[in-house]
Amino acid sequence: MKKRYSFLILLFLFGCTHAPAKQDAVFQNAPIHALLAGCYTGTMTVQELEKRGDFGLGTLDALDGEMVVLDRIFYQIKPDGKAYRLGGDATSPFATVTFFKKDQEFSPGEALSYKDLTQFLDERLLSSNLFYAVKVEGRFKTLKARSAPRQNKPYPVLTEAIKDQKVFEWENLEGTLVGFRVPPYMEGINVPGYHFHFLSKDRTIGGHVIDFQVEGPRIEAGEGRKFMMELPENEEFLKFRFEADTREAIATVEK
Amino acid sequence: MKKRYSFLILLFLFGCTHAPAKQDAVFQNAPIHALLAGCYTGTMTVQELEKRGDFGLGTLDALDGEMVVLDRIFYQIKPDGKAYRLGGDATSPFATVTFFKKDQEFSPGEALSYKDLTQFLDERLLSSNLFYAVKVEGRFKTLKARSAPRQNKPYPVLTEAIKDQKVFEWENLEGTLVGFRVPPYMEGINVPGYHFHFLSKDRTIGGHVIDFQVEGPRIEAGEGRKFMMELPENEEFLKFRFEADTREAIATVEK
Repeated sequence: MKKRYSFLILLFLFGCTHAPAKQDAVFQNAPIHALLAGCYTGTMTVQELEKRGDFGLGTLDALDGEMVVLDRIFYQIKPDGKAYRLGGDATSPFATVTFFKKDQEFSPGEALSYKDLTQFLDERLLSSNLFYAVKVEGRFKTLKARSAPRQNKPYPVLTEAIKDQKVFEWENLEGTLVGFRVPPYMEGINVPGYHFHFLSKDRTIGGHVIDFQVEGPRIEAGEGRKFMMELPENEEFLKFRFEADTREAIATVEK
Repeated sequence: MKKRYSFLILLFLFGCTHAPAKQDAVFQNAPIHALLAGCYTGTMTVQELEKRGDFGLGTLDALDGEMVVLDRIFYQIKPDGKAYRLGGDATSPFATVTFFKKDQEFSPGEALSYKDLTQFLDERLLSSNLFYAVKVEGRFKTLKARSAPRQNKPYPVLTEAIKDQKVFEWENLEGTLVGFRVPPYMEGINVPGYHFHFLSKDRTIGGHVIDFQVEGPRIEAGEGRKFMMELPENEEFLKFRFEADTREAIATVEK
């Protein structure tokens, strides 16, 4: 009997010291500067990322398409605009994920473009100094998106790699925008402002969003007050050279 | 017997879900931009900060002096240059702390100035893209430091508040430099490069370091590959206005 108690007590203490706490944080596995500089080697697996979030976006090893995470499933959007479920061992060099928790919701009656949506949210979200995870479901009358093609080593910088991007345009498509509004002081770490990836309702189509016209949007926003970043351990990251003036580069890669 | 087992199992599950994991991260409770903008209201207590680190630096509520954390003790350096142990309920609007873990150590034979030390470390630390916690013990032939005086509301921006700083110069003093080397991409969140606070061996004197000449330095550096930030919840933080070009402001407040 004493042995059983000892075992259970040891089990409890093990749980105390090794319990993986569910991170209530916006999580990243690299700063945006690393991606801009051409650090495209995947450093964290989907299996590791899914412990940090069930919602988010990013890219994949070798910049092989866009990544979107929705309802705990990780998808790759290839340059054909099609979405493919990722296996647990797929890797990402840059991903922003969180466990989505709705704090505010809106159902504006009118149709919104990308610009309209950002203005709508800027007038209603509590503070420009907090993170927001933003989800928008609706009927996309038009949607313009892109996906970047797989790169070969030696990797070019992101502004060069993006020149090969494939752009798709769809009409009358139901689906979800998955993204974040990032505070302006995060400039070296992520892209300030709005960034969305798209996934169709049937989960077969997606991409990095350039523009849209969405009807009947149902918008959910979740505040993020914690931010966590784990830096890569590979040579590529340890050696990349920081370039101070990247605002133009960021504007280029986002559009 | 079954009730006892049930209790122990519940205890284990509680441990699993509520265990406070020791954060192996560099932790901050606000971005530097908030401090630059005049957000001086303390948002996290010493009692909360000591769960995030036993080493670091920062400031205190109302910018009331400099804070230095060494060997788990939190100190306030007042404008008289004297160090006072802080109680658990003292608050800080901006602190950078970590649990210090030595990864590299050096004992250069020669005396070093601030500039010499930064060059010495830049040649030896693994990567400019990682965080480093840096501790330097030695005999300070000369040391120039400052402490900022308590501010009144409405709080001025940091470049204005710093004009009231008191500067001290000491000679032949044993003590420790407590600080960090921050990667360049962290520009909006912290101050890139080196930042040290000083604490004398007898723990009675300290300040934000401006320059020094240290003899027989014993240097320890700990890599930081994880970064965590928890944002304040007060009106002051939610409303502060981000100013895009702060490099000049940061240079001013550091020196």
